[in-house]
Amino acid sequence: MSEFSVEDHRWMGRALQLAKRAAYTARPNPMVGCVLVREGQVVGEGFHVRTGEGHAEVNALRQAGGQARGATAYVTLEPCAHYGRTPPCTLALIEAGVSEVVGAMRDPFPKVDGGGFDLLRAAGIQVRSGLLEPQARELNRGFLLRFEHGRPWVRVKLGCSLDGRTALASGESKWITSAAARADVQRWRARSGAILTGAGTVLADDPALTVRLGDDTPFQPPLRVVLDARLTSLGQAKVRDASAPTLYLHAEGASTQHEVEREAIAAIDGRLDLHAALQVLAQRQVNEIQVEAGARLSGALLKAGLVDELLLYMAPVLLGDDGRGLFGGLGITQMQQRHALKLVDTRQVGPDLRLLLRSM
Amino acid sequence: MSEFSVEDHRWMGRALQLAKRAAYTARPNPMVGCVLVREGQVVGEGFHVRTGEGHAEVNALRQAGGQARGATAYVTLEPCAHYGRTPPCTLALIEAGVSEVVGAMRDPFPKVDGGGFDLLRAAGIQVRSGLLEPQARELNRGFLLRFEHGRPWVRVKLGCSLDGRTALASGESKWITSAAARADVQRWRARSGAILTGAGTVLADDPALTVRLGDDTPFQPPLRVVLDARLTSLGQAKVRDASAPTLYLHAEGASTQHEVEREAIAAIDGRLDLHAALQVLAQRQVNEIQVEAGARLSGALLKAGLVDELLLYMAPVLLGDDGRGLFGGLGITQMQQRHALKLVDTRQVGPDLRLLLRSM
Repeated sequence: MSEFSVEDHRWMGRALQLAKRAAYTARPNPMVGCVLVREGQVVGEGFHVRTGEGHAEVNALRQAGGQARGATAYVTLEPCAHYGRTPPCTLALIEAGVSEVVGAMRDPFPKVDGGGFDLLRAAGIQVRSGLLEPQARELNRGFLLRFEHGRPWVRVKLGCSLDGRTALASGESKWITSAAARADVQRWRARSGAILTGAGTVLADDPALTVRLGDDTPFQPPLRVVLDARLTSLGQAKVRDASAPTLYLHAEGASTQHEVEREAIAAIDGRLDLHAALQVLAQRQVNEIQVEAGARLSGALLKAGLVDELLLYMAPVLLGDDGRGLFGGLGITQMQQRHALKLVDTRQVGPDLRLLLRSM
Repeated sequence: MSEFSVEDHRWMGRALQLAKRAAYTARPNPMVGCVLVREGQVVGEGFHVRTGEGHAEVNALRQAGGQARGATAYVTLEPCAHYGRTPPCTLALIEAGVSEVVGAMRDPFPKVDGGGFDLLRAAGIQVRSGLLEPQARELNRGFLLRFEHGRPWVRVKLGCSLDGRTALASGESKWITSAAARADVQRWRARSGAILTGAGTVLADDPALTVRLGDDTPFQPPLRVVLDARLTSLGQAKVRDASAPTLYLHAEGASTQHEVEREAIAAIDGRLDLHAALQVLAQRQVNEIQVEAGARLSGALLKAGLVDELLLYMAPVLLGDDGRGLFGGLGITQMQQRHALKLVDTRQVGPDLRLLLRSM
């Protein structure tokens, strides 16, 4: 790894900030930011807004014009080396006369995967990489997991009381958490490629699972995915209204008269194979899944080792021992079987506490 | 209420800091701090360390000597007006020639209760009160509750998983929370006048319930109190070792061959009356109680409306639905019956989260 200066950190930090602006729009592409600096001055900035539109480097080069010559380009992800929907960024950087490229990380996308840096070097451009790589990886954790491990990043979102109850014994759960917490959830939905739920939740709550940001911030509607082995939940229609696409994943042999997008996946003992479900979603270019389901599906994902992130909204209330728990079916009888997580962020959202935890 | 200057706030803030130094030693007396200021300079500072020793004002006057003449005294609680174990502080302030007294709040102690301020005024000293009163009340919340409502402040301490489980179904609970969290608990024990538990916890865990600060910070060992209606837990001896006093509260008619300090209190349907238990402890000059008990006693206190504060250590682990809950017997079947609390402090202690909540 090269050594990086304070100035290098500053500009890459700026490039990361720019990248984040496309959190709700870039997918299935990664978020990427680019800053062009010449003689200590920013001459161009850009980020990749959405598929089919200009990449970060091209947007920054357009802004810089002739001032790109001799500049250093800070990019949060290795520039692409292939002709996709747009021409390769490496070519644009070479043609613009950029003298150096500083990258945060290699792009694991098979058509790039080091080839972008190689092309730049071959053109006589100095290349350094690895600056703020953990931050860059964090930004595109779903995209990276999809290419590195063949499945989307799974975030389980749950709302509960201090004593870990998502609902009363009756199933009543409106509203344990505050309006502020529910509004915050919308922002996490907006950055997700898919919202996943189970037939039980659809039958019980008839949720729409759409993004409602409350302002005109642009976003791509996430795919709504219902795990419904026997396609029994189609009487509830909100989840397949016109506002966003919907996919039902079911077991072989299940059928319905409703015209819906659906796909049969493997089932084991009548239960859908969760690994297969995630694989299908990765093939559909989903980077991040937000799970908003009941204790059974959440518990099954956890038990299968498929929960990367837990987004927990905790209201400062007590509901007592009769209430419903967060994760069902874990069957933990010894302390060493407990699921250990790492707390990565804590903040107050309205009167509630929001915890972000990661699997270890 | 008088108007207070920035300088006034500064000196009272300092007096509050001084008062806190006696958090582990002052009880059953309140924590009190005093700062003497003349011409913008501190000429004396003091706080009340422990019962029988000098009050805050006297300690500050001793430090100031002749410079107290014409000074302003900032005191976190109304100076006493009666002969107790020490002569009244009002007299000392008058004799020292202090020209003004600024108080945070009136002392509800029946022998003071405004009489201190009155005596000072009668002696021609200017008196203003109410500066940083909420902070002063917070400091001595137990002492104040005892005199204003006849019972100690009740803090329930619990350690749990993210999903609100204090133990596995088997009862195993060592160790859900971290060593850092367990060390932090000791500081809360040290400021408590009593540690309260139930016979069930004593029988199951044989806890010592002593203060182990891990250094030589002075503290007064809190009274250990066991609620044991039929005196069935005396086979477990750690809770009545020589390191601190212990009191058993039991129902009429229960007896034991062990020589222990005990007191019979009212029982209702075989269960000890929790209001009566708290009244007994208030009579024994306990300001703050820390409850370290199982779900049944914690739940019964909550249901009786006797929990003022919840100190919750939450480990970032999941134990699943079979684990034991925080508060038993709440019998909540409708959302409007939920117990609402207010989050007053959140911080990370080692890998765990510490939440401090108050009843609303």
